Amino acid sequence: MHEATWIKRYISPLVTAAGAEDLRDDVALLSSQDPTIVTMDTLVEGVHFLPKDPLNTVGQKLIRVNVSDIYAKAAQPIEALLSIAWSRARPEADFEALVEGIGRDLQTYDVSLIGGDLVSIDGPLTLTLTLTGRCFNSAPVRRTGGRAGQGLYLDGEIGWGGLGLDAARTGSDPKTAQRYRVPHISPLDAAQAVARYGSASMDVSDGLLIDATRLAAASECGVLIALDRVPLAKPTTELEFVLAQCASGDDYRILMSADTNSEIEGFTKIGNLTESKGLQLTYCGQRINPPSTLGFEH
Amino acid sequence: MHEATWIKRYISPLVTAAGAEDLRDDVALLSSQDPTIVTMDTLVEGVHFLPKDPLNTVGQKLIRVNVSDIYAKAAQPIEALLSIAWSRARPEADFEALVEGIGRDLQTYDVSLIGGDLVSIDGPLTLTLTLTGRCFNSAPVRRTGGRAGQGLYLDGEIGWGGLGLDAARTGSDPKTAQRYRVPHISPLDAAQAVARYGSASMDVSDGLLIDATRLAAASECGVLIALDRVPLAKPTTELEFVLAQCASGDDYRILMSADTNSEIEGFTKIGNLTESKGLQLTYCGQRINPPSTLGFEH
Repeated sequence: MHEATWIKRYISPLVTAAGAEDLRDDVALLSSQDPTIVTMDTLVEGVHFLPKDPLNTVGQKLIRVNVSDIYAKAAQPIEALLSIAWSRARPEADFEALVEGIGRDLQTYDVSLIGGDLVSIDGPLTLTLTLTGRCFNSAPVRRTGGRAGQGLYLDGEIGWGGLGLDAARTGSDPKTAQRYRVPHISPLDAAQAVARYGSASMDVSDGLLIDATRLAAASECGVLIALDRVPLAKPTTELEFVLAQCASGDDYRILMSADTNSEIEGFTKIGNLTESKGLQLTYCGQRINPPSTLGFEH
Repeated sequence: MHEATWIKRYISPLVTAAGAEDLRDDVALLSSQDPTIVTMDTLVEGVHFLPKDPLNTVGQKLIRVNVSDIYAKAAQPIEALLSIAWSRARPEADFEALVEGIGRDLQTYDVSLIGGDLVSIDGPLTLTLTLTGRCFNSAPVRRTGGRAGQGLYLDGEIGWGGLGLDAARTGSDPKTAQRYRVPHISPLDAAQAVARYGSASMDVSDGLLIDATRLAAASECGVLIALDRVPLAKPTTELEFVLAQCASGDDYRILMSADTNSEIEGFTKIGNLTESKGLQLTYCGQRINPPSTLGFEH
């Protein structure tokens, strides 16, 4: 890899913001739009994506997992810095595919790439994105603002990440595998709904059950989830399979608490925050014991 | 590595800014101080530091190389996001050392850690820092603002990075080796001088000769350097050794062009920008041919 050449060939075409100075400088000027939030996520080959995943999908995933964090806080993504620790063993065509995927989703989510770094690594491909966002309100919606009695709302369906990972590993179902590689994150409309209704919010990335428990704990509440109300990737009446989908990761859908009686478009009310701490589950009105694994623990 | 435990144990104590929410959220709120610039640098074990370097020095280097970028643009570092791709093979004590070094220099440079990510890697330790800075003026001092005829000024001495790397590799001179591991970057005073005097500016990280050529090219000029005026780590009259020090990397000292007749404290005038493009060298008034390698090319 010749960094300067590759930056010029592949990365520079992605860069349009004036503050980025066409990547010819060591820093970028942030566009001035308060309140600004920022997130940083790293994806490592073999941990966050499979070594055989096509690299355009990896590039898309890198953008999406970060955009998902920004959306969940009721904000619009604005500017990104990208660090690529490029695995020397890979051919240049892989790099081109990676950047194609990154460029595609920078466009999809209207994100401006303003800087970053490119280095070589004798090891797994490692990608880090720093992403800023402009809040729709005067502050981001945190995990901490929920109160007992408020409803728990989920955007979209749960379980595609886990089913997709299984499919990608076994090669059984390419269409489902694609849902793991390029997650269908919550849309911008959902981020706007968080701004309007959300008291606490996060994206479900490690599994619905574990993330709902975390949101409740951050809000100093417990949480009750009615499993039969959770929209699933594969609807089923087998409780075990319901729980498996609710404890699998990589869904990147928004979960929020809200104090409302109205319907929230795209969202389903799946339970509520409670006075008593911890996680309670019901299925068709019956109490269910939580499974031993609630999701992916880092 | 158990990420959540290690984050709580080692990283959380470093975090003080209100906008960071004690790292309990997915995003941090940037403090509002325009104009804000941002830089991102990645260090990879075996590329940017030696596998045997003590990890507290690696932590310090990570902060310093980023602070150096911010200083060179006439700005004060403010907030950082940190991604650690932790090499599974290393013991926890190494992690503790790394974080000790990071924490020490966050304090030295008055930087607030507001977020980041921690992941495992079956490969070399890989560290990425995103650092924001507040400009002293209404905009950063770029590489592009130089004009032919302006003086070229260097802060401090050149050559410690290269000499230190040799010493670290051979184990010959621990004190000099330390100058590679923990570079003595330009001080805050130098950043303020850039704000006052600099027309174009950058930090010398790949070698004085190559970086001066880059600054001149960005400013659409050439550059002439009087080698006998360059303050060297090891002063010498052997031209070959002068050139070697001027073409070695990892110095992290500020190089700027300025239109002034006054002395600039800490800086030495080592040449000037020229109408004719490219690099010209003199030594005690004699023209010298540039060496084939001007510095470290990525």
